[in-house]
Amino acid sequence: MHQLGREARQASRVIARATTAVKNQALLAIAEAIEAAHGELIEANQADLQAGRENGLDAAMLDRLALTPARLEAMVEGLRQVAGLDDPVGVIRDMKFLPSGIQVGKMRVPLGVIGIIYESRPNVTVEAASLCLKSGNACILRGGSESIHSNRAIALCIAQGLAEAGLPANVVQVVETTDRQAVGELITMPEFVDVIVPRGGKGLIERISRDAKVPVIKHLDGICHVYVDDRADLGKAEAIALNAKTHRYGVCNAMETLLVHQAVAEQFLPRMADLYASKEVELRGCPATRAIVPQAIPATEEDWSTEYLAPILSIRVVSDMDAAIAHINTYSSQHTDAMVSEDFSRARRFLAEVDSSSVMINASTRFADGFEYGLGAEIGISTDKIHARGPVGLEGLTSEKYVVFGDGHIRQ
Amino acid sequence: MHQLGREARQASRVIARATTAVKNQALLAIAEAIEAAHGELIEANQADLQAGRENGLDAAMLDRLALTPARLEAMVEGLRQVAGLDDPVGVIRDMKFLPSGIQVGKMRVPLGVIGIIYESRPNVTVEAASLCLKSGNACILRGGSESIHSNRAIALCIAQGLAEAGLPANVVQVVETTDRQAVGELITMPEFVDVIVPRGGKGLIERISRDAKVPVIKHLDGICHVYVDDRADLGKAEAIALNAKTHRYGVCNAMETLLVHQAVAEQFLPRMADLYASKEVELRGCPATRAIVPQAIPATEEDWSTEYLAPILSIRVVSDMDAAIAHINTYSSQHTDAMVSEDFSRARRFLAEVDSSSVMINASTRFADGFEYGLGAEIGISTDKIHARGPVGLEGLTSEKYVVFGDGHIRQ
Repeated sequence: MHQLGREARQASRVIARATTAVKNQALLAIAEAIEAAHGELIEANQADLQAGRENGLDAAMLDRLALTPARLEAMVEGLRQVAGLDDPVGVIRDMKFLPSGIQVGKMRVPLGVIGIIYESRPNVTVEAASLCLKSGNACILRGGSESIHSNRAIALCIAQGLAEAGLPANVVQVVETTDRQAVGELITMPEFVDVIVPRGGKGLIERISRDAKVPVIKHLDGICHVYVDDRADLGKAEAIALNAKTHRYGVCNAMETLLVHQAVAEQFLPRMADLYASKEVELRGCPATRAIVPQAIPATEEDWSTEYLAPILSIRVVSDMDAAIAHINTYSSQHTDAMVSEDFSRARRFLAEVDSSSVMINASTRFADGFEYGLGAEIGISTDKIHARGPVGLEGLTSEKYVVFGDGHIRQ
Repeated sequence: MHQLGREARQASRVIARATTAVKNQALLAIAEAIEAAHGELIEANQADLQAGRENGLDAAMLDRLALTPARLEAMVEGLRQVAGLDDPVGVIRDMKFLPSGIQVGKMRVPLGVIGIIYESRPNVTVEAASLCLKSGNACILRGGSESIHSNRAIALCIAQGLAEAGLPANVVQVVETTDRQAVGELITMPEFVDVIVPRGGKGLIERISRDAKVPVIKHLDGICHVYVDDRADLGKAEAIALNAKTHRYGVCNAMETLLVHQAVAEQFLPRMADLYASKEVELRGCPATRAIVPQAIPATEEDWSTEYLAPILSIRVVSDMDAAIAHINTYSSQHTDAMVSEDFSRARRFLAEVDSSSVMINASTRFADGFEYGLGAEIGISTDKIHARGPVGLEGLTSEKYVVFGDGHIRQ
């Protein structure tokens, strides 16, 4: 791994100064190589699926592992989209003259070497590589052992695309070993790796965050809230509360807890209960909720801090917006929290006081996503406080250095 | 320490939503309290100086420890300046409509709780507290045991100022114990502390970086370079090379290595050697340097990676700008590196290819400083890659969350 790291560090200096045109050329050449290798990729993936079935992987995991023609097409399309995004590298902003006469501003630069650790889904290999490449970073990709044949086949296409653009192969390195120790080494060599992005289950991410000696861009949970204020337009509230819970269940930006102002609970909750019943969503409520919606089972303290990722919803009636904010700042995973209200001053306060990476007014939590935010793509979502918060796109894979221009200026 | 941390976390929610007016009121009230407590502060400081002399502190350390009337006046002036700075909290930027109809932008928010660990200089107590306060953060200040009486007296002034503005005392907590274990606890409680800023010697910062379970904003070394290109205006080069080395020796943004293009070395180095000799700067050179400046002693490999913080300079003659950049990217501590050249295309390349937190053209490295960059103040300098790079002011003590506005929008 140290050898891999050293090579990534060297390659990072080359890709950091590659022009936008060369990086785009590589992305498009990788897309063509994947199209041309259609048969080989399906074949390699069959080997993984076969081994997966023999090793007793469950249906959901086999599904994530499968490379269908549609998924291959999406990979190719994704590469072309990333080629079309603005290049964040080299952007200089806010150059201004200071009293001493020097001119100071900030220039956006790549982070250097990114380590990506992920499970099963082989399309992450292409997604992650394309975002790192466009943002001028070298990357080391460590996929799951269950997708090793697919990842190797994809790595060949990436290497071919890099070569066609005249870029060194080590700009994107796919870890070939399935040795678990490799992950432990990857996350503890700050001399070669600048940041780690883990993608996968909570267990994986907790383990990596605990052991890493390198900054980690991550989120652990998506315990997202929608608060329906007594000054809400209840038509909007209904649409948002339904969408946030039932649009997709297994995603980090789905609502897990619905908070309702006591003054509208009697009017709002019965109709929501009917809508959720039609979608077979299990409801768990506080005592006030259950007084209005008797079919809800009692919510325990544990429910407020549980990410169900399933058709289950906890509901709490709150006395006012302050109580809603207090609940959110106590139980939220700081991923995404929304309020539905027509009240301007409350909207200002909710935005300022809810300490989450995405805070929304009158919109579904499901919008918390790099594509929906216009980033063009997303390498992950961060709920941390420093560096990037929320969906992380190309800009989150860069930082800014200071640039100073003078004309022989010296400090007095 | 956990109790302190819990209280800081609670106080952080109050200070995060305090208005600019209230925060400025607190800063000005602290300034007045310090002016009023002039006698008590000098007295407390005498106790520290007395103990320091008994414990055999050296003259430099006693000097850093001393609170003179001029230093007290500077503390008061600093508080008033921070009150005058723009409030970074709540700034919303780049709100734009997306194809789905939602409006997305970024809002600047405090980090939460900042832990500051520093040595001897009691004025850091006020500086750090004022920057954290203005940026909406609670802080825990852990000064050196040698300045404990001074820090306690300053803490009383801070508490008085906070109280006058109606802010909770726990917004700024000064660790009263001199127990060394307290530092170990402070840097390993991510549930209560969001970032650590260590200020002090390299040993302290290395220890903290190694053991912290919380992000650390820091720099270890300032191995700064000036490269004099063959297309330099040698008058400017002379002024900059002299200023960068001799303006102050013990500072992190002083030049430690001078790189000179071979085509101008014979013309440039002898006059620089005379200037350095007049300031009694010891020169250590590569063989090519010594052929031109025989009084230079031979530089060893170790010299290229040494921060002298003293009137010592290493000099290397390089074949061209590429060799200079390669030297810098190998030996620089990524703090501040400068080129002197009139060549436009080389300037563009130097800016893009030197991977340091401040990169300069035709200006002295001594400008790498929060005040000189117009940040108004500086809590430290970061040479890390993620979050803030270079001088860290109020903005570096904040991050940005996403804000989303809709009108009942749901994801399709």
